[in-house]
Amino acid sequence: MAGISSCTLPMPEIAGHFLLRRDITFLNHGSFGACPRPVFEAYQHWQRLIEDQPVEFFGRRISGLLAEARARLARFIGAASGEVVFVPNVTYAMNIVARSVDLRPGDEVLGTGHEYGAIERAWRYVCEQRGAIYVPHPIHLPVERLEDVEEQIWSGVSHRTKVITLSHITSPTALVLPVAAICRRARAAGIISVIDGAHAPGQIDLDMQAIGADFYGGNCHKWLCAPKGAGFLYARPDRQAMLEPLIVSWGWRAREPGGSTFLDYYEWMGTDDPSAFLSVPAAIDFQTTHDWPSVRQACHTLLVTSSQRMAELTGIHALTPETTDWWVQMRALPLPPCDPQRLQARLWDEFKVEVPCFVWNGVPLVRISIQVYNKPEDIDRLLMGLQAIMP
Amino acid sequence: MAGISSCTLPMPEIAGHFLLRRDITFLNHGSFGACPRPVFEAYQHWQRLIEDQPVEFFGRRISGLLAEARARLARFIGAASGEVVFVPNVTYAMNIVARSVDLRPGDEVLGTGHEYGAIERAWRYVCEQRGAIYVPHPIHLPVERLEDVEEQIWSGVSHRTKVITLSHITSPTALVLPVAAICRRARAAGIISVIDGAHAPGQIDLDMQAIGADFYGGNCHKWLCAPKGAGFLYARPDRQAMLEPLIVSWGWRAREPGGSTFLDYYEWMGTDDPSAFLSVPAAIDFQTTHDWPSVRQACHTLLVTSSQRMAELTGIHALTPETTDWWVQMRALPLPPCDPQRLQARLWDEFKVEVPCFVWNGVPLVRISIQVYNKPEDIDRLLMGLQAIMP
Repeated sequence: MAGISSCTLPMPEIAGHFLLRRDITFLNHGSFGACPRPVFEAYQHWQRLIEDQPVEFFGRRISGLLAEARARLARFIGAASGEVVFVPNVTYAMNIVARSVDLRPGDEVLGTGHEYGAIERAWRYVCEQRGAIYVPHPIHLPVERLEDVEEQIWSGVSHRTKVITLSHITSPTALVLPVAAICRRARAAGIISVIDGAHAPGQIDLDMQAIGADFYGGNCHKWLCAPKGAGFLYARPDRQAMLEPLIVSWGWRAREPGGSTFLDYYEWMGTDDPSAFLSVPAAIDFQTTHDWPSVRQACHTLLVTSSQRMAELTGIHALTPETTDWWVQMRALPLPPCDPQRLQARLWDEFKVEVPCFVWNGVPLVRISIQVYNKPEDIDRLLMGLQAIMP
Repeated sequence: MAGISSCTLPMPEIAGHFLLRRDITFLNHGSFGACPRPVFEAYQHWQRLIEDQPVEFFGRRISGLLAEARARLARFIGAASGEVVFVPNVTYAMNIVARSVDLRPGDEVLGTGHEYGAIERAWRYVCEQRGAIYVPHPIHLPVERLEDVEEQIWSGVSHRTKVITLSHITSPTALVLPVAAICRRARAAGIISVIDGAHAPGQIDLDMQAIGADFYGGNCHKWLCAPKGAGFLYARPDRQAMLEPLIVSWGWRAREPGGSTFLDYYEWMGTDDPSAFLSVPAAIDFQTTHDWPSVRQACHTLLVTSSQRMAELTGIHALTPETTDWWVQMRALPLPPCDPQRLQARLWDEFKVEVPCFVWNGVPLVRISIQVYNKPEDIDRLLMGLQAIMP
């Protein structure tokens, strides 16, 4: 019984830790995450500690503290600690890589039509500057087999492809892409692989070794539930020398070089609050303590039934098969023809349901996130709102 | 009497707001600042508010909140609100500018020999990439007249000078440089002026209009006592089009452009905690409420007598005349021959005196910062420590 109930939402003991307003229906963990109290308290405790003696903290303690936090994060994602640096978010991480790749006129950067707008902009920006071409290759939906997705992506590769950049879990469509397979083929073909893992840490198990990407950026403030502004850039050791500093600071031509230029370049970008980085171990501890594999399973189970109920309401089938191979705690479901922006606003204004609705590729979608603080009643309320608002 | 006492340290009513350890002698406000409780509480309150409903905050409220905070900051520094963006720190601000200047082979970037190492690195980095030359022009000390400093700096200008970059208050030597005069001459000569104001906001009154720089970066977390990670970049309206994005995100080729590309490029760099930015008005309020001109005067007065006592101890004269035209709450004073790194460590370890000691241009210096939480006894303790340690 304990086993079953621990795999079903609601999970009030864990949900009670989150700081979200209780009077709303929050189905958008995916955009900015949410932070539970023990992690948030660790965050604000670090800030208080800094103010105790800022010179002691930044002058003598910070390197050791960051190294510890980085080691914990590295272990969590299956990397060595010298392969990871903290950055505020994936946008930042991807900018480092995009700025550093030696793109030449005519080179191609291959993305999918499912990439995140900010990251796509970073690649388009450097491509324009250097006469290279960003190719947003389509993945047509629905597809039935992951192998077909792999083939669709790979069919975008040409002899000019220098970089493949793709999301581990796509933002608009919430698809888990077959990144390991693509990275393996990219490596064999001499193509640089760059993965946008904004939605991955905490939602799926990560093993940098197994994924085999050259570069991987992740957010800890989304599904790992760390405070805002905690992300990372992973770089394979044999690719680190390729990277240029983004914010040039003391670490470029460092007077006292640290472990590597990779760490020197990105660890210190001028005075800022490092508390979000230092709270990542607390976020890992929180999920470990609360048996996160069961939490994920419970969230997924609710999302399965939610999808079914949505399909019954809309009469439209999902774009992906019913399996965790494709999606875990977040899913984008098609809506009947509507103005999704207005729908989203009315869901919030009239029903206090927070969920993103938008048009992607001409299709109106609602992207539902299920986190441990959600419960079946949240879906009731979403469906009630949709029924009331939609024609 | 009230007038007199309000212009003399100690000022226990104001000092009591600071979060610094009480059992130490903290004479290094300059490196990372220190934040008083009302400002720190505003900071952590914003963070709590974000966690209430992150999508409401980041999706619907943030633009308006940032605009308000930016307007307050702009007024504080004598700028229009469209001329300022928040960035974490001056290093970040100066990187934006250095990356954006269209430097050509042979162009010169003129700095002084008193610039901050991280900023100098940013300029050297872009110069190396583009075949330009960074010129760290000396300002010899002691000098007696500010006009001489102006001439010394200007004598570094050649027909190849494209940029002049200098500190408003220098980091190693704590000198207030005649930036308005240099900016005026630079403008007349068609040279881009870029001011590193890391130590200026809160320590001296700022009027961007009067200074006349093309670009000015400031830290709010130092002398304005804001939380760590609050800085700004000011850009003259007629120079804003020159700037390129640094972290390319949604604001480049924005789908819904805001007030200007200047704001679009730098306001949103991916999810991060904006609470330090939003707390800048609280920092301004704190200094306004507590009659900061008097505080500064009191700090300066203590620094004058401290300098005299230091000169008596060391037998070495200061490098600058005794006037606020040259320095305000921070001063670098020469030490007899010594190992300053070891001296600094022993001052902390044995006397719990936190003060930076270092070699600059072959001269060992101690840089004393006086902030409202300091008192004459702090200088007693510094002198006691120096006497005990130095030969």
